[in-house]
Amino acid sequence: MCQPRAVTDTPVCVLGLGLIGGSVMRAATAAGRTVFGYNRSVDGVSAAQADGFDATAALDQALTRAADTEALIVLAVPMPALAGMLEHIRTVAPRCALTDVISVKGAVLAAVEKAGLRSRFVGGHPMTGTAHSGWSAGDAGLFVDAPWVISVDDDVDPTVFAQVMRLALDCGAVVVPARSDEHDAAAAAISHLPHLLAETLAVTAADVPLAFALAAGSFRDGTRVAATAPDLVRAMCEANADHLATGLDRAIELLTDARDHLLTHTSVAALVESGHAARVRYESFRRPDILHVTIGAAQWRDELAAAGRAGGVIRSALPVLGSPG
Amino acid sequence: MCQPRAVTDTPVCVLGLGLIGGSVMRAATAAGRTVFGYNRSVDGVSAAQADGFDATAALDQALTRAADTEALIVLAVPMPALAGMLEHIRTVAPRCALTDVISVKGAVLAAVEKAGLRSRFVGGHPMTGTAHSGWSAGDAGLFVDAPWVISVDDDVDPTVFAQVMRLALDCGAVVVPARSDEHDAAAAAISHLPHLLAETLAVTAADVPLAFALAAGSFRDGTRVAATAPDLVRAMCEANADHLATGLDRAIELLTDARDHLLTHTSVAALVESGHAARVRYESFRRPDILHVTIGAAQWRDELAAAGRAGGVIRSALPVLGSPG
Repeated sequence: MCQPRAVTDTPVCVLGLGLIGGSVMRAATAAGRTVFGYNRSVDGVSAAQADGFDATAALDQALTRAADTEALIVLAVPMPALAGMLEHIRTVAPRCALTDVISVKGAVLAAVEKAGLRSRFVGGHPMTGTAHSGWSAGDAGLFVDAPWVISVDDDVDPTVFAQVMRLALDCGAVVVPARSDEHDAAAAAISHLPHLLAETLAVTAADVPLAFALAAGSFRDGTRVAATAPDLVRAMCEANADHLATGLDRAIELLTDARDHLLTHTSVAALVESGHAARVRYESFRRPDILHVTIGAAQWRDELAAAGRAGGVIRSALPVLGSPG
Repeated sequence: MCQPRAVTDTPVCVLGLGLIGGSVMRAATAAGRTVFGYNRSVDGVSAAQADGFDATAALDQALTRAADTEALIVLAVPMPALAGMLEHIRTVAPRCALTDVISVKGAVLAAVEKAGLRSRFVGGHPMTGTAHSGWSAGDAGLFVDAPWVISVDDDVDPTVFAQVMRLALDCGAVVVPARSDEHDAAAAAISHLPHLLAETLAVTAADVPLAFALAAGSFRDGTRVAATAPDLVRAMCEANADHLATGLDRAIELLTDARDHLLTHTSVAALVESGHAARVRYESFRRPDILHVTIGAAQWRDELAAAGRAGGVIRSALPVLGSPG
């Protein structure tokens, strides 16, 4: 099994049919891919089946089929379920190409390494999500134009990278190649820290009489992600503790300086002006296409990591060395 | 002048035709009110005139007309321009009813008191706004269903309160009666603190390579208000320094505790669970109608303040003691 084949023919086996996994199943199916999936809860399986999808609650059955069809396995389970899932894969489908859509790359990579599956693994992370969860929250259009990070760590396999790239593009995403550690530092700043700031704002306001009565746009926007299920927020924050602590330290430093200046000089100029400048820079941030890299050629991983760091994205499949164009 | 008359006949004189003042002019006009206004910049006046509105850059002319027609004057100028504006009003139109749509009530009240105009003043604050500013950003629908705070401090005049209530209702808002100090504490928590958290998030992420490349919904929402003009953010934050410092202290305390627990116990459970619970409470917050208070009757101010604190809003005009109908 696992002989070379056209990557677009590769079936996709999605493990976990919640918001992200369920959306991958829908989006890849809509793109014409063969997709099947497993979900732990029978309710989720029934809901997916009722919507016409190929889902089962029998894990070994799904993995045997993945091994037999040389499927690309997509790990879409919550972080706490990952280690057990990898044990099953090692037993039943150890040679299948493997990716994930779980947020923190360092923690997933460590678990994959521990399970002895690193050589066939290329991590992934679609940068999307909503405050809702479960199969019913999924949407075939969830990934359209969203950045989908794919790892280019030193040892990733070009063929597996290409398979994961195809899946992300089939789902409508734009691919951002990135090293796992750089991804995790960035995710702390733009995803995990925002969740903790939203929780902080909600708690602070809840103690003030009249606050909810007056709350309008800035409070509603600023606390939107506090509606996310606590288990999901904890899983991603706690799996990225070191990078998140760095972000928290910086945020606390900025807020403490602002408080001190407010009380001593009745001014918040420094924070407000630098914050506005940063937001303006973000609004004008451009994403050039990555066009001239051949996957598998010399230095291809370093070239992709540098291009991703500069804002580049892959919008259509890059060529793979030795594959027909 | 200033004899009793039906409040719905009262002309409205808007001073300052930016986002909020310009939207009041449009909304009150759309409701059939006679509205005229002043703006410092000739460009703003020209834009308002080109859209068919009755605007002038001649302040004394606008104030003389307000005095002659017993208009309700709406202060919609930036905080730094307020003291000078009040001096003109004291000279030209000292007996007109007066309200404002500037955010911080304590600071406005102090300026009004200093100008000797407190007896005819009832503060107001529509809880709305966008990241844009200026006449062109205004919208007749800006206030529809938004909370519009009207002050019920110990000494507010029932007739002026009723005039301001009518204006807010004519603009489509729901009226939240509140004491000025309670308004300001709440505004710090649900408006000023969110701005500083958004600025903090933008600055923190701007320093991390790859962060803008990966930023999606939670970052975009969490930094939206950082796009607001720095002068506007500074004006409202710095005018509410003491209440805002209290909110900052609480936020810093929550974030510091979360950071410490994250590093010692790899857990952010406390913050995430209380934040989620607070957001859920906010989502289920109900706004019952305030129906059975007569403006000017015994204890009317205390009754309205208590009702507002409990979430109550005025959706249709309350009766005024001694007025027909």
